[in-house]
This record gives sequence, structure tokens and C-alpha cells, in this order.
Amino acid sequence: MKRPLSFAIEHELSDSLARAGKIATPHGTIKTPAFIAVATKATAKGLQSTQLKDLGVQSVIGNAYHLYLTPGEKVVEAAGGIGKFMAWDAPTMTDSGGFQVFSLGEGLGKKVSKISPEEIQHDEEVVMIYSEEVATEHGKLAIVDDEGVTFTSHHDGSLHRFTPERSIEIQHALGADIIFAFDECTSPSADHAYQKEAMDRTHRWAKRSLAAHRNNIEKNAAQGIYGIVQGGRYEDLRIESSRTLANMDFDGYGIGGSFSKRDILGVLDKINRELPKEKPRHLLGIGEPEDIFVGVEAGIDTFDCVLPTRNGRNGTIYTARGKMSIERAEYIRDPLPIDTECGCMVCKTHSCSYIHHLFRSKEMLGLVLASMHNMYFLANLTERIRLSVIGGSFQTFKESFLATYRR
Amino acid sequence: MKRPLSFAIEHELSDSLARAGKIATPHGTIKTPAFIAVATKATAKGLQSTQLKDLGVQSVIGNAYHLYLTPGEKVVEAAGGIGKFMAWDAPTMTDSGGFQVFSLGEGLGKKVSKISPEEIQHDEEVVMIYSEEVATEHGKLAIVDDEGVTFTSHHDGSLHRFTPERSIEIQHALGADIIFAFDECTSPSADHAYQKEAMDRTHRWAKRSLAAHRNNIEKNAAQGIYGIVQGGRYEDLRIESSRTLANMDFDGYGIGGSFSKRDILGVLDKINRELPKEKPRHLLGIGEPEDIFVGVEAGIDTFDCVLPTRNGRNGTIYTARGKMSIERAEYIRDPLPIDTECGCMVCKTHSCSYIHHLFRSKEMLGLVLASMHNMYFLANLTERIRLSVIGGSFQTFKESFLATYRR
Repeated sequence: MKRPLSFAIEHELSDSLARAGKIATPHGTIKTPAFIAVATKATAKGLQSTQLKDLGVQSVIGNAYHLYLTPGEKVVEAAGGIGKFMAWDAPTMTDSGGFQVFSLGEGLGKKVSKISPEEIQHDEEVVMIYSEEVATEHGKLAIVDDEGVTFTSHHDGSLHRFTPERSIEIQHALGADIIFAFDECTSPSADHAYQKEAMDRTHRWAKRSLAAHRNNIEKNAAQGIYGIVQGGRYEDLRIESSRTLANMDFDGYGIGGSFSKRDILGVLDKINRELPKEKPRHLLGIGEPEDIFVGVEAGIDTFDCVLPTRNGRNGTIYTARGKMSIERAEYIRDPLPIDTECGCMVCKTHSCSYIHHLFRSKEMLGLVLASMHNMYFLANLTERIRLSVIGGSFQTFKESFLATYRR
Repeated sequence: MKRPLSFAIEHELSDSLARAGKIATPHGTIKTPAFIAVATKATAKGLQSTQLKDLGVQSVIGNAYHLYLTPGEKVVEAAGGIGKFMAWDAPTMTDSGGFQVFSLGEGLGKKVSKISPEEIQHDEEVVMIYSEEVATEHGKLAIVDDEGVTFTSHHDGSLHRFTPERSIEIQHALGADIIFAFDECTSPSADHAYQKEAMDRTHRWAKRSLAAHRNNIEKNAAQGIYGIVQGGRYEDLRIESSRTLANMDFDGYGIGGSFSKRDILGVLDKINRELPKEKPRHLLGIGEPEDIFVGVEAGIDTFDCVLPTRNGRNGTIYTARGKMSIERAEYIRDPLPIDTECGCMVCKTHSCSYIHHLFRSKEMLGLVLASMHNMYFLANLTERIRLSVIGGSFQTFKESFLATYRR
């Protein structure tokens, strides 16, 4: 039977794992490397689907946990799936909800997040994570057993249960082109013994997720499924996880959890050498400019990250010279656009002075404009990286970009 | 010297004061009757200038009080005026700030608003007012003397002073095509004696505002000025105010304060019979669908009202069948657009189900989409009214619209 997803590598580099390709899905093609816009609740915070298209975004990723709670997967299914529901006629993904189930609760008494709060305090270079704020807002229950996870809703404290089969069922209803296996996410500070135990469980869940998908003839023909590599910060576990999942018949792979930036290059590289070369690889929840270069070089094809919109809402804006804070007093009369080198609609239309005023006045439009620019910035950067891979100038482009981009 | 504004009546009806015309300004023409989008702080809450254009909005109105406080009129002036500041290359207006100065404080110990809170409680038909929420949030000082008003900022309680000359100076810096004289706004519950006293003062201030404008050769050539009719709910005062201002050399007239809907028709009609027919008339702060019909019939040319965006942010949406609340449970699976008869981008793209979900999930995009639709609804309604005036079918259109529009 023909699979709903196919991945073609157009060009690969010899001095790194970087490659450019095309992921064909039932709703169109994603040219890789690509930045996937996060649309957790079927909306990329403040941005319309038509605007996302105009900003160069090719695909969005929703979340099974959030859409299960609101509006409920049956509502999205009745609308024709997440794409039709949000008026996005291009490729879609949904994450399995594993990360959210754990990060919104407390797994075995330990608060779960991609990075432990202590590490953030001691290491400025650490990768910022997307559920950190949620993790600290809620301190509810998430009890894992071998069958699945019982957890409380972050909305109302009501009790729910996810198993691999249930997550896949929800993702079938949501109908995204690419869905993810249900995984256990651990705290990065968990010890080796617990990471190993959780990883082994994630592998058993991966097998069950895959079976639940392949056994549904209709959905299996319409949606592709990615497995998720886990193993925390332990290289041996990451490699073991990659090897184990590589032997399962997934259509692609997600790399879950995250690491400090010090670790990311070495581990990503090793993970991807274990994964089948002919399948696409998605780095979950990481995608600031410098991370994208590192990821592409290590063989990552797609990225998602909430930071373009989250930073936008905080007035933190990506530019060719690094991140800037538009609320700073220096911008009050600045007639220039945010980024003079940027071709986005915001930079072609609005001055720093105006956007500064919107933020100072707490006007919603400021959040929207900053989010639009940031989304364009990352989509455009990834597109330029793609072209540099195809053109063989990746290293030159990376060096010239990072020479002026102040972290 | 040629005046910067000119008004041409294209068509007028014989059975009412309704008319269609064109107000030519230095930044383009406003075809009337027209709905002017409120952009208090140089932004129509959540909507980009390019979107306003696409929604059929011809002109925006900013506020001297708010822009004086943030970012300061000098910042807007440095950007090239309010139009350039907000990237709006079409006609602009600024209100003088009189209403805000009073409504954000307490004038002579009395809370000032267009409608007294008591009246709102007892009369559901009363016109909703645009500074009511601000009036109740703040209870600060506004002391009026014959020279001007001393008031506290609603931001930080700091002390400020507006005089007619200062308001005009600020509006010169803001650079709108149409500016307004500085007026004293009273509580609708004020007695006849106080309304008379305040009205006489407003007339003296109108004269001073006009002189301050005409004496500035450069600004007088670039901006037009409207006087503001006051007099509260007293018909004799409203007529006296109209006659007095009609004799002053304004380029147009605003009608300030407001009334219960019971009063509006009779008074507006009488006011406009006193005002010079050849000059445009703007009804300040009123513009729900049923009000626009009443206003046009009584000879009003332009309207502004915050309700399209304010209602939009509350999930209250205008449709051909009246206002609806998108958060109601009945919309959770509704695949239809908000208004099946509407041609706006929101209705062409999104379902009730999706917008309902955005509101239930407190997603910013819901506010934006509802505001967009509402803005289009009023701009489009006013455009259709204009065409009905030109085509001689105003009464028929009014009757058919109001027959299905549930208030």
C-alpha cells in the first residue's frame, strides 16, 4: 500500500549531515529544512492562517492534549480535521500530547520540563523551553504506569487518562498529515536509571502507537506517523533509543526532550546517524536561529518552536543583529523598521517608533506585529538555509549569519 | 485661501435630511455617509491599517488626550503625523480630548459620561457609550475653569492642563486632516442650569479653538477644524448651541455627548436643520447599526464608535439578524460562517465553530477576527446606506434591514 507521506532528499552535504528535501503529504509538500509554526490550539497565537502563508510558513503543528481538552477532538473531526478547522489548506502535524501530559503535571513527584529550572538559573546558554511557564503555573498530578498516564486537566483539575492507543485515536480524529507516537517525557535532571526506565517504556509505547496507527486502514492511508527519540541527556540512551526506533516502521522521527546547547550538536548528530537516512527528522520544540543552524548541520529536516510568537508577545524581536527588546526607550522615535534587512510586511510597513508605542500602550496590535515579524524571520531564515544547502554554501551562510547575529 | 477640506453633496433626499456626499481632504476623499474607525491611540484595537482598508474603512479617528499622554504628540509629529505614524495613507481625524479629559476624571464632583450609569440601569435602549468603562475605572480629578481644565492622567495620576489653545496645538502636532474644537463634556444627568453654563463655556472655547487654528497659517492650510455642538439632553440648548456654532467659520461640525435613543432622532434632526447644510456633520461616539439609520436620516454624514472592536473583543458580533454572542454553546460545532450574508474575509474563511473555540480558549485571534468582522459590518452597512441614498431607496433599505435586525 502506498504510504501517505514520502520524503525525497534533493541535496545533501558531504561535510555534515545537512540535507535539503521535500516531504510530500496529502495536503501539500514541505520543502526542508523547514520551520513549522506552532498552533497548539489550532491557532498560531494572534496570526491568521492566511497571514502564516504570506509569512512563508509551510506547515503548522497542533497539540493532541490541548485539542482533546478544548474543543475536543470530535469537534475538530466534525469540521474536517485540524487543517479545515483552522482554515489552513497546507500540511499539518499534531504532537501526541505526551510532553504536555507530563509537563503540566508532576510525574512521580518530579516536576517535568524540558530543562530543569535550576539549570536555567545556572546556564544562560540553555535552550529555552516551551512548556516552562505552564509547568510552573500548574503543579498537578500525572501518574505514569506501564499502560499509560493518568493526569489532571490544567483547566479544571478533572481527571483524564492517555494511553498510546488513546493518543493515536485522538490524533486520528484531529486528522493531521503527520502524527506522533505517544512518549513519556522526563525531567532533564532525572538520573540515568529513571531515564532508562522511561525510555524503555517510551519504546513499548512507540510500538503500541505504531500498531494502533497501522491497524487503522483508513487513517493509515491518510496520515503518517513519527516515532519520538527519548533518553534525556544521556548519550548512550539517546543512541539506544534511536537504534530501537529506527527498527520500527515509522514514517519519520521526532527528537523529543531537549538539552543544553552545549550538548545539542554532539547528541543530535549521533542520533541522526542511527536513524534511517531516507526518513524525515523533526526536532521537537527547538528552533531559535542559532539552533536551526546546529540542527540542520546535524541532519534535522523540520523544527517547531513557540518562541517566535511567545517572544513577539513579550516584545522580543529577532533581527539580523540578534534579539532586541522593542519596549526599550531608545526606540520611541526610531523611524526605521525593526530590521532594515527584513522583507516582511511588518518591516515594509511599520516603524520601531510605532511598534514601541503599541507595546508601551499595551495595544494588542503590537503583539500581533511582533509575532508576525518573528514568524517570518524564522521561516525566511530556514528557507535561506535550505537554499544554501542546495547551493552548497551552507557553511558560508552560517558563518556570515552568526557573525552579525548577537545571541 | 483655499481650505484643505471641501464637502460636495452628491445626492439628498426630499423626505428626510439624508444625503450622500464626498469630503475631500489632503489625504483622500471620504464618501459619505461613512463609518470612521476609532483608533484612539493610533490603532484600531488589533487591526492593521492594511486590514482596515480591506474591510472598507475610509478614515480613522485618533484622540488628542490619549496621544498626548502616550507616546506624546511630538513623537507622532516627528513620524510625520498620525497617518504616517500608523501607516494609514488615507484621511484621518483627531478628537480634541475634551470628552476624555472630563470622562476620565470627575468634573466638579460629578462623574462625567455620555450616559449616566443610573440611566443605563433603567433603560436598556440607551446608547452605550465609549468611555463608560474608563469612567468607572478611574475616579480622578478634572477641575474646569473658564480658561481650561486641570486633570490627572489616568496612567499615573500626574497633573496636566488642557486649554482650547493647547488642544489645538496638540492636534496640530498630530496632523490629522480633520481636528475638533476643545469642548466641555457634561454628565447627561446635569441640570439645565449647569448644562447652559457648560455650553456657554464650550462656545467660548470653540471660538478660541477656531482662532488658534486659523491663526496658524501653515496648519490652517493643511487641516480642517470642526466645532462641537453641546447642550446635553436639553433641546433648547442643543438648538442654541447649533445656531451659535453655525455662525462660526468651522469646516464642519461634530455633535457631542449623547442621548437615549428615544431622544436622538428629534434632537439630531433639529440640530442639523440649524447647522449649515453645505458643511459635513459628524456624530461623535455613536454608530451601532440602528443608530446609523437614524443619524443618516437626520442628516449626519460621518459616525465613529468603538463598539465594533469593543464588542468584537467581548465576542459580540453583528449579523444581519442582530447581535450574537459567539461564546454560546450552540456554536461549538456550527460549520457556517458568523453571518452567511456577509462578504468579509472572516466570513469567507472561518466557521462559527472555530471562532467559538478561539473565544473559549481565550486565544487572541478570536478577538481579532470578531473585530474584523464587526468593522466590516459597519463600514459595509454604511456604504450600502450611502448607495441607497444615491439610488433613492433609503427607506426601503432601512425597512428591510431593520425588519430582520434584532436589536
